[in-house]
Amino acid sequence: MAAAKTGKLQGNALIGQSGGPTVVINQSLVGAVLEARLHAQIGKFYGAMHGLQGILSENLIDLSREPAANLERIAQTPSAALGSVRMRPTEDQCGETIRILKKLGVRYFFYIGGNDTAETARIVDRLARKEKYPLTVFHIPKTIDNDLKGSDHTPGYGSAARFVAEAFMGIEMDNRSLPGINIVIVMGRNAGFLTAASSLGRAREDSGPHLVYVPERAFIREKFIEDVRRVMDRWGRCVVAASEGLTDPSGRLVSTLSARRAVDDFGNVQLSGTGKLGDYLSDAIKEGLADAPRVRADTLGYLQRSFAGVVSPTDAREAREVGRRAVQWAVKGHRSTSVAILREPGPRYKVSYGPVDLKIVARYARPMPASFINRAGNNTTKKFLDYARPLVGKLPTVAFLKGYEVK
Amino acid sequence: MAAAKTGKLQGNALIGQSGGPTVVINQSLVGAVLEARLHAQIGKFYGAMHGLQGILSENLIDLSREPAANLERIAQTPSAALGSVRMRPTEDQCGETIRILKKLGVRYFFYIGGNDTAETARIVDRLARKEKYPLTVFHIPKTIDNDLKGSDHTPGYGSAARFVAEAFMGIEMDNRSLPGINIVIVMGRNAGFLTAASSLGRAREDSGPHLVYVPERAFIREKFIEDVRRVMDRWGRCVVAASEGLTDPSGRLVSTLSARRAVDDFGNVQLSGTGKLGDYLSDAIKEGLADAPRVRADTLGYLQRSFAGVVSPTDAREAREVGRRAVQWAVKGHRSTSVAILREPGPRYKVSYGPVDLKIVARYARPMPASFINRAGNNTTKKFLDYARPLVGKLPTVAFLKGYEVK
Repeated sequence: MAAAKTGKLQGNALIGQSGGPTVVINQSLVGAVLEARLHAQIGKFYGAMHGLQGILSENLIDLSREPAANLERIAQTPSAALGSVRMRPTEDQCGETIRILKKLGVRYFFYIGGNDTAETARIVDRLARKEKYPLTVFHIPKTIDNDLKGSDHTPGYGSAARFVAEAFMGIEMDNRSLPGINIVIVMGRNAGFLTAASSLGRAREDSGPHLVYVPERAFIREKFIEDVRRVMDRWGRCVVAASEGLTDPSGRLVSTLSARRAVDDFGNVQLSGTGKLGDYLSDAIKEGLADAPRVRADTLGYLQRSFAGVVSPTDAREAREVGRRAVQWAVKGHRSTSVAILREPGPRYKVSYGPVDLKIVARYARPMPASFINRAGNNTTKKFLDYARPLVGKLPTVAFLKGYEVK
Repeated sequence: MAAAKTGKLQGNALIGQSGGPTVVINQSLVGAVLEARLHAQIGKFYGAMHGLQGILSENLIDLSREPAANLERIAQTPSAALGSVRMRPTEDQCGETIRILKKLGVRYFFYIGGNDTAETARIVDRLARKEKYPLTVFHIPKTIDNDLKGSDHTPGYGSAARFVAEAFMGIEMDNRSLPGINIVIVMGRNAGFLTAASSLGRAREDSGPHLVYVPERAFIREKFIEDVRRVMDRWGRCVVAASEGLTDPSGRLVSTLSARRAVDDFGNVQLSGTGKLGDYLSDAIKEGLADAPRVRADTLGYLQRSFAGVVSPTDAREAREVGRRAVQWAVKGHRSTSVAILREPGPRYKVSYGPVDLKIVARYARPMPASFINRAGNNTTKKFLDYARPLVGKLPTVAFLKGYEVK
């Protein structure tokens, strides 16, 4: 940790959660709250209900009085215990936020979330400095998309990736037993990390997903049909993982290309929460492959970020740690930053934590490295598997009958 | 066990798996194969690849030689290890089946599956008797739909119900943190048991799913919109569980009512594997509720029957046991039947196993009892929860902040 120090502050703290929840976001909340109890510099610890919205409406709770045992149960509970919000505040709202923080005697503001949340943290930090109000602002990272710049990976990704890997292990075994074409849509916006996780549970050479389409590569309908045809010729069945964020070569979302849109939409182009992309890809296969067997498409949906009971132990531990580190660094007087998880070189998985500028986290989404995507743009590489395996933890195993010949 | 005896047979055995797989169907397979090793009456134990299709094409393997340790791993593996099939055989194909069983010296035929599988077993049994070929045919029950007549519940249901319950626990916490309207489509064909399982993880009075629609009650669009409006007025958010098999008062599948169908379908009306029903219900709300917040629909899809890592221990144990019982009863000379799980009266969960006529299992699908559905037809009852809780095992728990007031 080499962040510059700004001098230690004595005062209250406030924390909020923002953006799409994850199954470990409460670990970060609890890590911060329990760590603060070890530091006399922090007085009260306030929780804002539904993030910035809760600050602006002064809908706050006193986390200082939450029993530690209940906090430990909260840490194991999926989704944001304080409630979350999707909000890009105006400068005025950020100014109002500072006014309220001042009134509450808050010197430490912790905001858990993704890029947008980091952007809010950055604006609040900048305004506070402009007003010469001594406030330390820490962004605590969270996103299943794994797209925050400056980090090896992001809390929330490991557990979501574990869910996706287990989902595909089951879908693959299902497809093996009743062969056909199964297309499964995975979250991740503009980053392919979560879709790529579909390949983590492959057990054999013929195991699916046989094709993996990530938003880092333009999606070409004809190539897709050809890819499926090739897999069908080889294995007689096909499992496809496709990212919700796929775009065509002109940059349009594939999920909005369907003819259905014009007929039935009510104005909202949703990236997920509809079956449109899956239906579009199914239809492409039914049109393009004359002899296609049963084609179906499933959309994993919110389960990826909320399923109660599938958690990566590594992810849970690290999510707790980024919350703790933010508080440790804040009370030590470090300047406002985000907390990055860095991977140590070497064969054994080991991480360290370091500061990363709010601006970097806020402004740039991180795509998958090219080395994680095969040349044909329809699968993951061993490099990706090596990267992601330690993050999801030990997956369940599947077994196969040896299949002795009948004599 | 009071089944009539038909005299003991000495010979080989053959087993197959049929219909949609489950995460515990291999428990039944392994239960039967390992039990057979204890009985000298059974010689070779053949496995048919992809059920009846494997018999007809003589695509068989020798299960007698499978190592027990590998079989134990198979038992923990989701989906059908022998491969499955969807096939309603003709009388000719059943006749051909008997010819092949004769050739192989098979005196015991075990067929794992749902209603259609029981029907095949029934026809094969009837033809064998007509030809005076001494063959004992056992149907071993399996279905996530829980719709087999003569049983308290069916192997496969408990684990699928557990998955659905955990999925809704997460979706509910997600919806609580980012309020809106979430509609989730659940499998189950004409039976509402699996959709009803969505209510098993409710933790508080305001916990979702707030509305549960099962196929045993006609779905009325206007009533649905009114129901959602009422929940929104009360809780400011709404989680809906809806069965894929919902029909309107005239008996048409709701999933086929969408305008999209005429425009975009390629001939296949699929009950699941498309986002149609979810999109239709979303659109109904967007049209019917002028002030609706963000509406999304997720379709749980194949995960419900295949997810690697979510298994009810009770379900796994009982699935193993029905396989064992079928073999025990067969070698004792009992007549061809299916194996029913019966629940013993009393406060503690306890089951016994009994025979049930193939005809009864084959011919009648079992709907949810009326006592499991509330009077308004939009929720489950305590009776259902009491019925289903022991079947899914202990669910994860969720915790809530006590939320002490800020002074």
